[in-house]
Amino acid sequence: MDGVVSLLTDFGPGSVYVGQMHAVILRRSGGRVRVVDLSHQCPFANTEAAAYKLRRSYGHFPEGTVHVVVVDPGVGSERDILAAEADGHRFVVPDNGVLGGILAGLDEVRVHRVTNRLLMNDFVSSTFHGRDVFAPVATHLALGGGLDEVGPEVPPPPVPPMPRVEGDRIEGKVLVVDQFGNMITNISREVMLELGEPATLRVRIGAAFIDRLVQTFSDVDPGIALTYFGSGDHLEIAVNGGRAHELLGMGIGSKVVVERRPS
Amino acid sequence: MDGVVSLLTDFGPGSVYVGQMHAVILRRSGGRVRVVDLSHQCPFANTEAAAYKLRRSYGHFPEGTVHVVVVDPGVGSERDILAAEADGHRFVVPDNGVLGGILAGLDEVRVHRVTNRLLMNDFVSSTFHGRDVFAPVATHLALGGGLDEVGPEVPPPPVPPMPRVEGDRIEGKVLVVDQFGNMITNISREVMLELGEPATLRVRIGAAFIDRLVQTFSDVDPGIALTYFGSGDHLEIAVNGGRAHELLGMGIGSKVVVERRPS
Amino acid sequence: MDGVVSLLTDFGPGSVYVGQMHAVILRRSGGRVRVVDLSHQCPFANTEAAAYKLRRSYGHFPEGTVHVVVVDPGVGSERDILAAEADGHRFVVPDNGVLGGILAGLDEVRVHRVTNRLLMNDFVSSTFHGRDVFAPVATHLALGGGLDEVGPEVPPPPVPPMPRVEGDRIEGKVLVVDQFGNMITNISREVMLELGEPATLRVRIGAAFIDRLVQTFSDVDPGIALTYFGSGDHLEIAVNGGRAHELLGMGIGSKVVVERRPS
Repeated sequence: MDGVVSLLTDFGPGSVYVGQMHAVILRRSGGRVRVVDLSHQCPFANTEAAAYKLRRSYGHFPEGTVHVVVVDPGVGSERDILAAEADGHRFVVPDNGVLGGILAGLDEVRVHRVTNRLLMNDFVSSTFHGRDVFAPVATHLALGGGLDEVGPEVPPPPVPPMPRVEGDRIEGKVLVVDQFGNMITNISREVMLELGEPATLRVRIGAAFIDRLVQTFSDVDPGIALTYFGSGDHLEIAVNGGRAHELLGMGIGSKVVVERRPS
Repeated sequence: MDGVVSLLTDFGPGSVYVGQMHAVILRRSGGRVRVVDLSHQCPFANTEAAAYKLRRSYGHFPEGTVHVVVVDPGVGSERDILAAEADGHRFVVPDNGVLGGILAGLDEVRVHRVTNRLLMNDFVSSTFHGRDVFAPVATHLALGGGLDEVGPEVPPPPVPPMPRVEGDRIEGKVLVVDQFGNMITNISREVMLELGEPATLRVRIGAAFIDRLVQTFSDVDPGIALTYFGSGDHLEIAVNGGRAHELLGMGIGSKVVVERRPS
Repeated sequence: MDGVVSLLTDFGPGSVYVGQMHAVILRRSGGRVRVVDLSHQCPFANTEAAAYKLRRSYGHFPEGTVHVVVVDPGVGSERDILAAEADGHRFVVPDNGVLGGILAGLDEVRVHRVTNRLLMNDFVSSTFHGRDVFAPVATHLALGGGLDEVGPEVPPPPVPPMPRVEGDRIEGKVLVVDQFGNMITNISREVMLELGEPATLRVRIGAAFIDRLVQTFSDVDPGIALTYFGSGDHLEIAVNGGRAHELLGMGIGSKVVVERRPS
């Protein structure tokens, strides 16, 4: 194994486009690059969810892994493609804001615009850059190719607005609903602890409160809503034994507020 | 390739958690371990279905493969994790009864409780043991690590009750509904033959009978229900050209009785 | 890596049967063969869609890859299994017409019928040839085994009828609806250009026309229908920012006509 590429797309699990990206990487690397499917069911065109998923996942991969994101409201249009390096990992992503979310807070970020036609497939379709540009460029980088060979350096992307402590509250939202109906918010443990000790805080959704910030589901009775820091170290909302997003009438984008408990 | 790990979970096909487990195994093994996705759409928290799927699948893998099951009604709670060895294969599973179903009838079963903190990820989240405990322990075992290094030996698990011949009938149930709507029961060919030759038996579901135990679908006319021994050598119920579970109004858990035909 | 096998089935993404095919190839090749999932969500039993998907995908794989198709209205019945070689690639498929669509127009096609019992699994189930015949035969071929070892040579399959220019029109249909609701037709760019320059043509669906043959989605306003040549170089129908098959009331098999614009 001379390199690793991870793939994160919104193509859906049965898409032949995923298989074609594997094929291109396999062919161009002569099998020396290992491909890992991080997920192909990112919420459609949702760059915020994609950034969250990759930010919380990339560190589990070996150093030097190249992470490819093909999640893009403007697929097929004329936006640029970026290649970046930070924290020992590399990234090939559309220039649609997703990179800012992935790299937020990291130092020594290098970003290049992908323009080198020689690194792309001979035939570049106008609709499927994942196969014809992202996959071959990722192969080049995974095999140790230079970042400066892909095209000119450009400034690091701006960090998208994230929830911060504002006065005595944090206003966030639901980023991801997982397969169990649990809702992952964009509020990190770090930001939440800035507001106060967990025991002094509560979570408000609409007109209701969830008082219980717990360690595991079994800390509350079945049917009871709870909040906890999930495996991605963000605040999550669940219902023990139930599908929280249905029971609480929420979904991707729903507002979630953390505030101090009245004492 | 120095080792193989298979993964069986109920995370759903698009879960980023699956990709993270791949990443951990890849990183910890330096790419020396191959990972195969057995399935990530096990019916949610259904340990009986998981045991069936793995029991009927593990023998197709190379000897020495480590099979990981993360299907667990109590995920995140304080149940133990077990590592086992039997029939030339190894298993890392939650201590929730699934192991008894996987290993039923096998000799020379060794089971250890997973307690060695050094074999786990540096950070162990309270909600995602699949990534932080199961994956690293499986990597250790796949690379030839000793079973006794994971923790203390414990007694083999009890075998869960399986359908047996009772008088002149076998009472079973539907374990799995496959993507075609075919229903796989928990009644094995072996147990069924104890009751009698197939030609002398019939299958009862509710008030209806299916008389035809056949070799292939094309042995009956389109629209007609049939029973046969599937690729897992269990009794299956199908409808030629139709979705049996819908047409027969059945699902996971539905009762299935085998009895002697009146002569 | 000594060989590559690609898998295309209609088993669904969560099927344990897919994992079992991986296991068999891994075991029989001692890990020397790499397996790529092209897709496991081919429309059920739709051999035309399967042929299209593989025909447009196989060339992205390394030369010598063995492509396995298990998509078959008659699964489990007594149809033959074929192994073929063309264009530097190899194929193992059911004898149900799918091969003619995959190989249409290729020269120097060699086809053999799979009969050599020694190349199959020791136990061959009557219902799951994918695992017990297709996977082991593909492993044999991927490791460089001879095509003539699988069984006797047979004539190449007939090419199924494809849309052609008839007078001043082409009559085609929708082959595939992708995860975005875009519809891929069976009308290739090549055939369409025989009828005339794109600017002189229009696409008719039912009583409506789509005038716009464009390069990318952003060439039309949101909500507007468009046609374009997709990544597979076939005519596709989409709606910018919408799900075309729902908005246009179409699906797999819907009629699509290309005709000259009135001047």
